[in-house]
Amino acid sequence: MSHVVLAGGVGAARYLTGAVEAFDPATVTGVVNVADDLVLHGLHVSPDLDTCTYTLAGAIDPERGWGLVDETWQAMAELGRYGGANWFSLGDRDLGTHLYRTARLHDGATLTEVTAEITAAWGLACRLLPVTDDRIETRVGLTDDREIGFQEYFVGMQHSIDITGVRFAGAEQARLSPTAIEAITGAEALVIAPSNPIVSIGPLLAVPGLQELIEARREHNVAVSPIIGGAALKGPADRMLRELGEESSVVGIARRYRNLAATLVIDEVDRELAAAVEDAGMRSIVMPTIMNQPGVAAALARACHDITTGV
Amino acid sequence: MSHVVLAGGVGAARYLTGAVEAFDPATVTGVVNVADDLVLHGLHVSPDLDTCTYTLAGAIDPERGWGLVDETWQAMAELGRYGGANWFSLGDRDLGTHLYRTARLHDGATLTEVTAEITAAWGLACRLLPVTDDRIETRVGLTDDREIGFQEYFVGMQHSIDITGVRFAGAEQARLSPTAIEAITGAEALVIAPSNPIVSIGPLLAVPGLQELIEARREHNVAVSPIIGGAALKGPADRMLRELGEESSVVGIARRYRNLAATLVIDEVDRELAAAVEDAGMRSIVMPTIMNQPGVAAALARACHDITTGV
Repeated sequence: MSHVVLAGGVGAARYLTGAVEAFDPATVTGVVNVADDLVLHGLHVSPDLDTCTYTLAGAIDPERGWGLVDETWQAMAELGRYGGANWFSLGDRDLGTHLYRTARLHDGATLTEVTAEITAAWGLACRLLPVTDDRIETRVGLTDDREIGFQEYFVGMQHSIDITGVRFAGAEQARLSPTAIEAITGAEALVIAPSNPIVSIGPLLAVPGLQELIEARREHNVAVSPIIGGAALKGPADRMLRELGEESSVVGIARRYRNLAATLVIDEVDRELAAAVEDAGMRSIVMPTIMNQPGVAAALARACHDITTGV
Repeated sequence: MSHVVLAGGVGAARYLTGAVEAFDPATVTGVVNVADDLVLHGLHVSPDLDTCTYTLAGAIDPERGWGLVDETWQAMAELGRYGGANWFSLGDRDLGTHLYRTARLHDGATLTEVTAEITAAWGLACRLLPVTDDRIETRVGLTDDREIGFQEYFVGMQHSIDITGVRFAGAEQARLSPTAIEAITGAEALVIAPSNPIVSIGPLLAVPGLQELIEARREHNVAVSPIIGGAALKGPADRMLRELGEESSVVGIARRYRNLAATLVIDEVDRELAAAVEDAGMRSIVMPTIMNQPGVAAALARACHDITTGV
């Protein structure tokens, strides 16, 4: 038994929490996006890996939805004194993670190794694997002709401007994590988490070899739609899809994912679109997908597993 | 009127506080040691510059004698969770300074520029100048045949092992700060602060050109002895002197400094050694030098200025 999840940030983190509740955590693996990673003030910050880690550890701040609970902001206050760039808030506790990661990477450790050390320190029994140990960087093209980093668009500008395109700098040269290849190849169930399809799942697929690996096992894969009732629960996935000329609906998601997975799990509010999803080329399963109540994420993980393993 | 101070950490910081009290702060310049600087977890840490800045800003922690007051240690606690190297404690507030410095250096700013920005943000009217914008690194040879970085010896090992020698890696290639050259050349008074002669003043003099500049104006220079009654007030200067075969006394200091300055200020407890200082080749002035009471540092700065300017 093994359950592998293609993962971005918040949505994937919640899904993974359900998976480790539903199954033996040691059988659960997240293959996580690193294209949002950034070097900030010399520190290597991995937002999606940290969101998954902190959420699985029960240490994520429940109000903000990112970063650690019981956080303080003394370093940012002093940085502000100097007029330093503090648009990306690094809490004092959170800084401990970035200091550790940066030091280990400087020592020559891979991001995979550092991530294993960090998750172990938080007592996680599941695995989080960066999709690659190489640097990929999501670059967002804007309607004002600029191209900026993803976090600058997402956090710095609060995604307040329309996009014209997205590219993943460095992806062509990136090498897929051997551990991730092994996990995916051997996975009983592979789930595309309800993450932003463009900037969370997109960069995973941009790493040479991953898309082929996933497509080759399409019948054993299932995706959970990140779009519910036409909108993203969190983040700009809905707007980004529209701005790139796609449909912000479960049907739009089905068109994106139909070569990757046989089945799309859609929320009950989208029940009427189930047939359209099937027309777009994916089997559809309708069930609660909003993971804000106890048990929803675990039930979702169980259903995904059963779908892919034919139970 | 201008008053230039060759400066290390705590002792120099206190002296500088007296100088800005005694004179127009805009006329006071510290030329500061950077050979204790280290890159820690990817961050550029400048202990002596920060000690001077925080002390002059009245923001140094009075109990510890280093770092900022009202400090918290959340980042270090998390770093400890991961088993990261936390022998060098970086407070959360203090981290703001290191984040800013590191980001600006990555941007291509010089340490001189960044230091000016940091001191301005703290409202300092005097100048602190890194002796060089290049990297110098104090390396300490130990009796167990190892050679380690200064902070590892000083903070990590609490200087608990005897030393066999000290060298300043990179010093030969380092270029003396042009601003520092200008300040020293134009200084009415030049004072060697009561800092560790081996690892604070030593690396300043190791930057090619500085020693010659100082020696050329010997008559207008004065040193304040960091050794009082045979001991250092703080730090391992006394032990280091003895371990390197020198005398841990004002006479030992006079032998070190006699080519650099005409006068040595010694504390009242060393009154009996005044003649021996003269015999060693420096004029001696006896006065209170322990800067732990209001007014002592300012009186010391005034006396140093008067001595060098012949008032």
